Amino acid sequence: MAQHSTILLVDDNPDDVELTTLALREYNVVNDIVVARDGQEALDYLFGRGAYAGRDLYEQPHLVLLDINLPKLNGTEVLQQMRADERTRYIPVVMLTTSTEERDLVASYRNGANSYIVKPVDFSQFIAAVHQMKMYWLVLNRALHSDGE
Amino acid sequence: MAQHSTILLVDDNPDDVELTTLALREYNVVNDIVVARDGQEALDYLFGRGAYAGRDLYEQPHLVLLDINLPKLNGTEVLQQMRADERTRYIPVVMLTTSTEERDLVASYRNGANSYIVKPVDFSQFIAAVHQMKMYWLVLNRALHSDGE
Repeated sequence: MAQHSTILLVDDNPDDVELTTLALREYNVVNDIVVARDGQEALDYLFGRGAYAGRDLYEQPHLVLLDINLPKLNGTEVLQQMRADERTRYIPVVMLTTSTEERDLVASYRNGANSYIVKPVDFSQFIAAVHQMKMYWLVLNRALHSDGE
Repeated sequence: MAQHSTILLVDDNPDDVELTTLALREYNVVNDIVVARDGQEALDYLFGRGAYAGRDLYEQPHLVLLDINLPKLNGTEVLQQMRADERTRYIPVVMLTTSTEERDLVASYRNGANSYIVKPVDFSQFIAAVHQMKMYWLVLNRALHSDGE
């Protein structure tokens, strides 16, 4: 695992952002967290546009946690654009959402989501789920990084 | 999670099959394990052909652990055929292999693998990795099942 893993968290719910960030910072895996509050901001970060113009695109996140119902552009549309671009095609994407609707599951997997997790309602279960997810994708899973790591 | 989750393990190495099966049976998640020793046998099982002719195809595995270097048909070819067929398109597939070659990583993710795990050499790390993987995919992850579960 990279020494400083970056996680892009795309979520418009302030409570969920706070809780997820708290869970991601816990334990002994160092990581930077970038938060995008809507789908457009997520793409701006990934492709170095808008407020992120000039960002070093060789530094892509090691994991994207992507909500589905987002302002401006929803999560499955963000995913579709990520999978269509070589710079972001292989970044692991976990959909992290309250939705249990089949159409969201279908759209996510059809567009190339690696995984789909329903946000647990219970506080401690939420923390445990985020921790389990982080350890799985940043430590156990072998990803392909654009920088050839 | 389904009461009786079925895992399809596709691996031609008898030692790895024994170790993985041991790890999968541990702990408190009940699951059936089907072992295929080559890529052709894996497809026969998934599509109810050959020795598996007449199998109920509504009962698809909840997780496929897929080695890459396999007799007859390799893992990435099995994956390609799974992703091209609606009956197996959404089954979570974790590549579980000794290979760390970039071309295998690329072929796996390009063909729709959900995850790629390099088999740990150490016995206890191997057991722990399989356990972590099982809990992630059978308990935390939400999959789309062909039977609409």
